[in-house]
Amino acid sequence: MNRSPEAITSLQNPQVKRLVRLRGRREREGEGVMLVEGARELSRAVAAGVRPRELYLCPDLFSPEAQELMPGLEAALGVARATLLSRPAFEKVSGRENPDGVLGVAALPAPALPELGTRALVVVLHGLEKPGNVGAILRTADAAGADAAVVLGRGADPYGPNVIRASQGSVFAVPTLALEEGEALGWLAAQGFRTVACTPDARQDYWDAPLTGRVALLLGTEHAGLPPEWRRAHEAVRVPMYGQADSLNVATAAALVLYECVRQARA
Amino acid sequence: MNRSPEAITSLQNPQVKRLVRLRGRREREGEGVMLVEGARELSRAVAAGVRPRELYLCPDLFSPEAQELMPGLEAALGVARATLLSRPAFEKVSGRENPDGVLGVAALPAPALPELGTRALVVVLHGLEKPGNVGAILRTADAAGADAAVVLGRGADPYGPNVIRASQGSVFAVPTLALEEGEALGWLAAQGFRTVACTPDARQDYWDAPLTGRVALLLGTEHAGLPPEWRRAHEAVRVPMYGQADSLNVATAAALVLYECVRQARA
Repeated sequence: MNRSPEAITSLQNPQVKRLVRLRGRREREGEGVMLVEGARELSRAVAAGVRPRELYLCPDLFSPEAQELMPGLEAALGVARATLLSRPAFEKVSGRENPDGVLGVAALPAPALPELGTRALVVVLHGLEKPGNVGAILRTADAAGADAAVVLGRGADPYGPNVIRASQGSVFAVPTLALEEGEALGWLAAQGFRTVACTPDARQDYWDAPLTGRVALLLGTEHAGLPPEWRRAHEAVRVPMYGQADSLNVATAAALVLYECVRQARA
Repeated sequence: MNRSPEAITSLQNPQVKRLVRLRGRREREGEGVMLVEGARELSRAVAAGVRPRELYLCPDLFSPEAQELMPGLEAALGVARATLLSRPAFEKVSGRENPDGVLGVAALPAPALPELGTRALVVVLHGLEKPGNVGAILRTADAAGADAAVVLGRGADPYGPNVIRASQGSVFAVPTLALEEGEALGWLAAQGFRTVACTPDARQDYWDAPLTGRVALLLGTEHAGLPPEWRRAHEAVRVPMYGQADSLNVATAAALVLYECVRQARA
């Protein structure tokens, strides 16, 4: 890969200023792009077929992981041309406290609704705003072999830098679609999904519900829960609580029910 | 509760400077205290029997939750005397980006090894350094009704402000002991615990292992795993992975195995 002979050092450079603006969701949507920061995240993205249009590197900041991954990645991305940034310039465009010197700009993915087998597992997120929670759920959904994730409405941007980071790039491994509620409900019904609302006031513990076939897990916020039209699910399940805490983190609840689906499918 | 008539406003005030110093682990251990910040965390601590020696309040910063919880808490803590801090002074002593105006100083807990029934569930953490992970595990351990948590060696301070926060105060609900490795191994053996090492290279999926009776779950860091003497456990279990991600977050793995213990005990 060719690198520009000289690194960009000026914090006033127009490319630097544009990258800073792209930290805003509206600006990213305006350009139809996403920022993929971090060697691990970029390598997961590339493994999932993402081809960054632009690549910004600051080798001075490379972590051991970036040092290990970048030569292969740069070779794989033969077409692209990497731009070098000075350390201050990279730190300015980075969204991280300790950047690893790797930042890609790629077209916003638009995955299609997946083809499904008789067994399918989809996680549907309603109104989750914390990128850390959304990212953690996507990471676990990938591990559990989920077929897709659906993000409804305007919660956290599933392709925002903080979700990408919290998911460690798993957002690229699990097809992740932002859908309107009606569209999502229609698709789930047409595909014969059993919908399973995860909600603390359900009467049934999650391990007592039948979670085989095509299962869609519906998850809402810890405080507001799910809206009425999503609570009319085939099953409502709760994670039983035995302690002083009155709620589990939503990503923890999601992990428990996701893996219960896997356990039942294997049993 | 009597409040000092005037709020401390000077950032140079010796009490303010001391509270800032107490953000350091060594300083807290020197005084034998912990900082309990946040209305929810303080109320969980008080519910678990913690009695703060000192209470610092900034009502201007109270969140809705603090406004709801503090009158009852102040009444319950009749003996203590709250000191008012100005907003800048509170923001200086706070470890948070958005403080809620509530900070207690209490003696460092020294819970005894718990009395156990024929069923018991203990989680043992080795070398976990991220307070967010330790706190998340304690929160889930509380929800799963665990009897105790044991933190080995010098990982994250279980009574540090960041663990208290990430656990949402659950560290007070589950007896949490910092033990030397030998002491922990000896206690577990003497009490007839079945030790279960959670490790990605185990051959057995966690739902296939017998997890009833007295069970101690051993968890290490995501990268280094468990040291050899802790891997010689009665069982080694893994969380099976079906996706692109090569590891689960340790708190997610802990939640899955903790709740599998609960499921098996109920089944």
